[in-house]
This record gives sequence, C-alpha cells and structure tokens, in this order.
Amino acid sequence: MSNQIHDITSYMQEVGSRARTASRALAAASTAEKNNALMAIADDIDQNRDTLIQENRKDMQAGAEKGLDAALLDRLELTPARIDSMIEGLRQIAALPDPIGEIFDMNYRPTGIQVGRMRVPLGVVGIIYESRPNVTADAAALCLKSGNATVLRGGSEAFHSNQAIAGIIHQGLEKAGLHADAVQVIATTDREAVGMMISMPEYIDVIIPRGGRGLIERISNNARVPVIKHLDGICHSYIDDEADLEKAIQVTFNAKTQRYGTCNTLETLLVSEEIAETLLQELGGMLLEKGVELRGCETTCRLLEQAMPASAEDWDTEYLAPILSIKVVKDLDEAIEHINTHSSGHTESIITENYTRARRFLREVDSSSVMVNASTRFADGFEYGLGAEIGISTDKFHARGPVGLEGLTSVKFIVLGDGNIRS
Amino acid sequence: MSNQIHDITSYMQEVGSRARTASRALAAASTAEKNNALMAIADDIDQNRDTLIQENRKDMQAGAEKGLDAALLDRLELTPARIDSMIEGLRQIAALPDPIGEIFDMNYRPTGIQVGRMRVPLGVVGIIYESRPNVTADAAALCLKSGNATVLRGGSEAFHSNQAIAGIIHQGLEKAGLHADAVQVIATTDREAVGMMISMPEYIDVIIPRGGRGLIERISNNARVPVIKHLDGICHSYIDDEADLEKAIQVTFNAKTQRYGTCNTLETLLVSEEIAETLLQELGGMLLEKGVELRGCETTCRLLEQAMPASAEDWDTEYLAPILSIKVVKDLDEAIEHINTHSSGHTESIITENYTRARRFLREVDSSSVMVNASTRFADGFEYGLGAEIGISTDKFHARGPVGLEGLTSVKFIVLGDGNIRS
Repeated sequence: MSNQIHDITSYMQEVGSRARTASRALAAASTAEKNNALMAIADDIDQNRDTLIQENRKDMQAGAEKGLDAALLDRLELTPARIDSMIEGLRQIAALPDPIGEIFDMNYRPTGIQVGRMRVPLGVVGIIYESRPNVTADAAALCLKSGNATVLRGGSEAFHSNQAIAGIIHQGLEKAGLHADAVQVIATTDREAVGMMISMPEYIDVIIPRGGRGLIERISNNARVPVIKHLDGICHSYIDDEADLEKAIQVTFNAKTQRYGTCNTLETLLVSEEIAETLLQELGGMLLEKGVELRGCETTCRLLEQAMPASAEDWDTEYLAPILSIKVVKDLDEAIEHINTHSSGHTESIITENYTRARRFLREVDSSSVMVNASTRFADGFEYGLGAEIGISTDKFHARGPVGLEGLTSVKFIVLGDGNIRS
Repeated sequence: MSNQIHDITSYMQEVGSRARTASRALAAASTAEKNNALMAIADDIDQNRDTLIQENRKDMQAGAEKGLDAALLDRLELTPARIDSMIEGLRQIAALPDPIGEIFDMNYRPTGIQVGRMRVPLGVVGIIYESRPNVTADAAALCLKSGNATVLRGGSEAFHSNQAIAGIIHQGLEKAGLHADAVQVIATTDREAVGMMISMPEYIDVIIPRGGRGLIERISNNARVPVIKHLDGICHSYIDDEADLEKAIQVTFNAKTQRYGTCNTLETLLVSEEIAETLLQELGGMLLEKGVELRGCETTCRLLEQAMPASAEDWDTEYLAPILSIKVVKDLDEAIEHINTHSSGHTESIITENYTRARRFLREVDSSSVMVNASTRFADGFEYGLGAEIGISTDKFHARGPVGLEGLTSVKFIVLGDGNIRS
C-alpha cells in the first residue's frame, strides 16, 4: 500500500463497498469468532513490538522534520507502555459480554403475537482521528466486538504507525476466520478521503470524529452521515448551602486538580451565597496553593482577594488548564439557570445534603452526566462500568455521555407468532 | 395570525427561540400537568367540533377550486369520525405512563459511586407533514407527553384546519398552566419556512417528516438537524419448506390483502422450491380470486400460469396496490440474500416450524421488524403495545421501527455519590 492513490473517489467507493459487504458477515459472526480475533490481534501486537516501534519511528522522524510541536510528537509516539495498554485494551474488550443478539422486553400482546427487541450492529462505523496511533487498535476493537465493520482514517502524521497496526489487525481477523475488510485503515493521507467518508451514507452508517473542536465542527457541518459528536466539556459544580463542607471541598478540589486537560475537569464553580465566605476561604486557599488561577464574579473577588475578576467570556470557556472561574449565586434556581445557559452539556455536579434539591438538580440540569456529591472527573466509560469507551457524546440523539459497546448498536423489533393474522 | 408573513427568517427564529424556552419548562413539567393539558385539549376539541368543521370546509373548498385530486381531498377532510379519533388519541396518550424521569440500571461501582440512567426529552421536535390535519393533534400530543416542545408545519392545503386545531391546543396548554409555546403551528404557507426549520440545530433537535417519499428525501438531503426517516416498506415473507402450509397461506394472504396501501403490506413473497408447487396452487388461486395481480420469477410463471413475468424492477418496488411479486428460492440462504439486497429494511417474516432457521432469520435479516409465523401487517406501534406511534423509522440510528414515546426521548447518565473523588 502506498500513500499515493490517484483516484480517491473510486478508491473510497471500493473501501465503502467492501466495508458494507464485510459488515453483513460480521453481523452474523459468533461471539467466539469475534473474541478469537481480538485475542489474536493482541498476541500479534505483542509479538510485533519491534516492527511497530520501527514504523512509528518513521512517523516521529518525519514529524520532527516537519517541525511538529512537542505535544503533538508526544501523542504520536508509541512507547512500550502505550503498546502494553493497546494489548490490555484488546483483551479487556474480548472479555466484555457480547451486546449483539441480546433479546429483551419480549411481551405477549392481546393478538397473541409476542413482541420484543433484539440488539444489532449499526453496520459500518467511520472513525476520523488525529495523531494518536493507539486509537487505531482501540476503535477497531470496540467496533469489531459490537459487530460493526470499521473504516479508520488517522492523522497523516501517524501514517506508517497506523498502516503497521492495520496489518496486524488483518492477520488477526483472518486467523479467526473473519473478513479482513471488517477493519480497513485508509491508505492515503489525501484530505479528500475524509470528505468522501462523511458523504457516503450508502456505505457508512455513522461517523465518530475524535480530536479537537475544529475537526469535529468541520465534520459535523459537512457530514451527510450521522455524527456522534463530542464537543467541549465546560463542567460545573454547584455547592449548595446545605452541603457538607468537608465533602464539598474534597470533591471540588479533586474535580479541578486531579487532571487539568480532560473534558470532565471542573471549569466553573458555583457557590451558594449563604456559605460562600467560609467555603471560599478554605477551598480558595487550597486551589491557590496548588497553583490554580481563580477568576471570580464580583462577590467572589470581594470575599477572596487573590481572585481576579472574571470576564463575560470566562463563563463560556473550557480552560483545560489550572484556571477556575467562580460565581456566587443566590440559590439552586440561579445555579440551574447559569448551568443550562453556559454549560456545554457534558457533566455537572451538585454538592448538597438536601434531598429535594438533589432530586431537582438531577431532573432539571440538561447535561449528559448529572451528579450528586461526586467529582465530575468520574464521567468516563470505564468509571461508569461500560468496560471501554469510544468517546463521550455531547449530543442527545442516539447516544449521550460516554459511548461504549451499546452506543455502537441499534435495536430491531422481533415478533414471534403462531400463524397470527391481523384483523 | 395570517398566512402572509414578510420576514420568514426572523419569524422562524422567533418560533425556534420560543420553542427552545418552552422546552426547558416542559422538561420539568409534572406528569399531572402534561396529562391535564392533554385532557383539556381533548375536551376542547369535542366542544369545538363546529368551528373545526367550518375551518376545514374553507380548506376543502380552496382545495376543490385548486383542483386537488379526490385522494388528497379525502385525506384533508375532517369528518366527525376523524374528530372522534383525534379526541380518543389524546385521551389514550394521557393514559400512557410518563416516560420522562424514569431511572434505570442504577449500579454501584467499585469506587463507591452509583451510576445509572435517566430518561429525558430530546428538546424541540419539528414535524413536517402533508395534508392530514389530524396529524397536528396526534403529533403534538406525543411530543407533549414526552416533554418535548413541538414546531409543526402542515401542508398549505390544510392551513385553516391546522390553525384552528392549534388554537385549541394553546387553550388546553394554558388551562393546565403550561407554556403555550410548547406547541407552535407555523402560521405561514411559505415554503421557505421548511428550509429554515431543517437548518436551525440551535433551536430544533430532531425533524420528523411525515408524508411521501419525495418529501422525506428532500428533507433528509438538506437537513442540518437529525431526521427520523420513514422510507419505503418493501416487505417480504419467506415460506420455508418446513412451514405449516395452513399457517403459511393464512399469514401470507393476510399480509397482502388486509390492506393494500400501508407500508407494512407484503410486496414480495419468497417460496422454497420444495413446496412451491403445492403452495402456489392454493395461495395463488386465493390471491387471484381476491383480484391480486401476481408477478413471478420464471419458476413461478411455470407453476402458476396466471402469473405474469416479473421484471428486475419488481423486486425493488413498493406497490401499495393489489400486486404481489413472487420468487421461488432454493433455500433460506437465498431468501436472506434476496431480502438483504432488495428490502427497504422495514418488515420481513419467515413462515417455518424449523427452530434453527427461525433463529437464523431473526438474527441475520437486517430490517426494523423481523417476524416468525406472523403477518407483516402487525408492524405498527399500537400492535406492538407502544400505545401510539409518531411514525416508523427505517433508520438504524437513534430509533428503529415504530416510534412511540420512547423514540422521542434521550437518556442521560446520573451519578449518586457520598463525597466520592477520583484517584
């Protein structure tokens, strides 16, 4: 394979058509076949570490020559630890229950038919991602287990690494008797290939972009195929005046400082005016000591002299950095109003011992994860017990929040009868 | 309100923004408030039958003058029986359980957090439909019960009928203390309004087009908002050589002849070659006697002299008429292959007493409803026990098959903790 393909249109149509054919066979594949393929791929990655690292080095060198920045080069690198975690990921996905074919809600109707649902694959999943080559194995594994064929388009800077991983995946599929076209990695770095992927609903059933906001918006705006989007995480915690202050401090400190660069990191803290003074003194001190910059509303700045004044923009910003915006609010109503106006719909948490307010917050806050007395950092497929995640959806349609195997499936109706007719 | 609005763009943005505001309030509305509104609307329709019929007469007259055909005029007419069924529909939807706020799958995780899901509304649902004015009440009721604000755009020929129904709905909403903007019926017949509706993702979360293929394709191709599509119903039955012939004949005859014009009507019959001769003699005779035209493959035409030869096109045609295409196939594999190639993914049925083949058919046929020994005519929200349906989705994404209240909802994650932090 080469990264010079002259007729992108016919190449992509060929890829799409092969994926569609493979997806039919994969939908009927047994749980054992799928698990055997996943285990074979894991073993082959383990046995081909040297090749992987060699191919990755080509990408690293080319990247360094092109002047990629250090953060990008870091994401691009396949270290032994990252290879370990790819292998571990494949084995974990093999160990998860197979979602496909699950039958549920079978009920008899007055006409005598028995009606229920069966979980089935979506069909063909297209993944468009940036530099991390480990996504190639992770995403392929989740799609394979959920019975979907995959078309993967990685970043051009990871071309050699991705092609090497693709080769190993094909071997594993064939060892398990599955169709090698069940996982295809686009063999060109031409950008036109992305344009084609997002406009072939006849071949691709859903697109999952994994990357920065720019990538995701570009794809969503132009796609003619459904897209599972993950936009910003502007996450809020509201500390109620009936909060246990000990818990409030512990949870908020964790939500902001456990990791700064993740989408479920706390970005805005709302505090009830009743307890603002006490709370901000203690929590503010801890955060400042940890090196977190505080940007507050007027009241916050009055109560905490080290806080800088927040601008209007701050309430709509995902910092992904040691910065926290703080607003003192009158009550729960003002907190919910602020969240539903400024949140990106990712994750919000209330800290309170008040039953009625906790219940209202859960019901009325319109975000993909809503929490009581827990750190927003828990919003994650592994923490939620999904076993793995292909991303976090900030959409409401189809899948919302962390997307695991179930988010890659659909359900059809099944009807069992005994010669029943409609009258 | 008038049907002459000069600035469609700002009118539609106003409608969208009001819908968004109303949807926030409606998401938090209690079950009693929603049911009270539905019952009040039903009562008010009952008390305003004369006005409705008067307004409908304006549309009927204008339609007759414009030269609309008889079928269209029939769909447009609000007869006393149709008004009864609108009222009955509203009361039935009031009696259904409220899907919103349902909490399920709450499990403890090793970290101590308890994680589960809560069912929530999608937000704002846009419905674009053609001539039937009863859709205005039916669709508004389903959206209201599922906590969604609605923007309805009916056909221009039903303008006066739809505005009259809208007036009654607004009264009912206000009587129950709900926001009148929760249901808005577009007050212009300008086509530009449809173009706006399908391209305001900031205000409308999903579009459901109800009408002919032309309408649905036009909308899906241009929408920037997710669309729940209902395309053709090219439904198949496969009669296996291990079928109970009595059941096979009864079910197939029902699936084809109980109603000709519905999307779940049988269009293509596949018959195993082992039993083709016996079966086609008896079933063919019954169908011909009923006035059904038979179009067969070569073998069919040989076995049944009254059958006309089918063209290649027939296998991809939704007749919606007393016509049936018939193909004799070698076995289950050929039947599944034919279905997965030619079906529109709506509904298919196998007639067999063989356990293993029934199980394979259920798993491998990729359609929104898959049946064993039952008439395809059962594919319907009421027959499935959904209580009501807003349409049948032939998509796999989000909702598949008959769409009831649940198809108009999303689920968010909820996390209950006790001060838990992530380590």
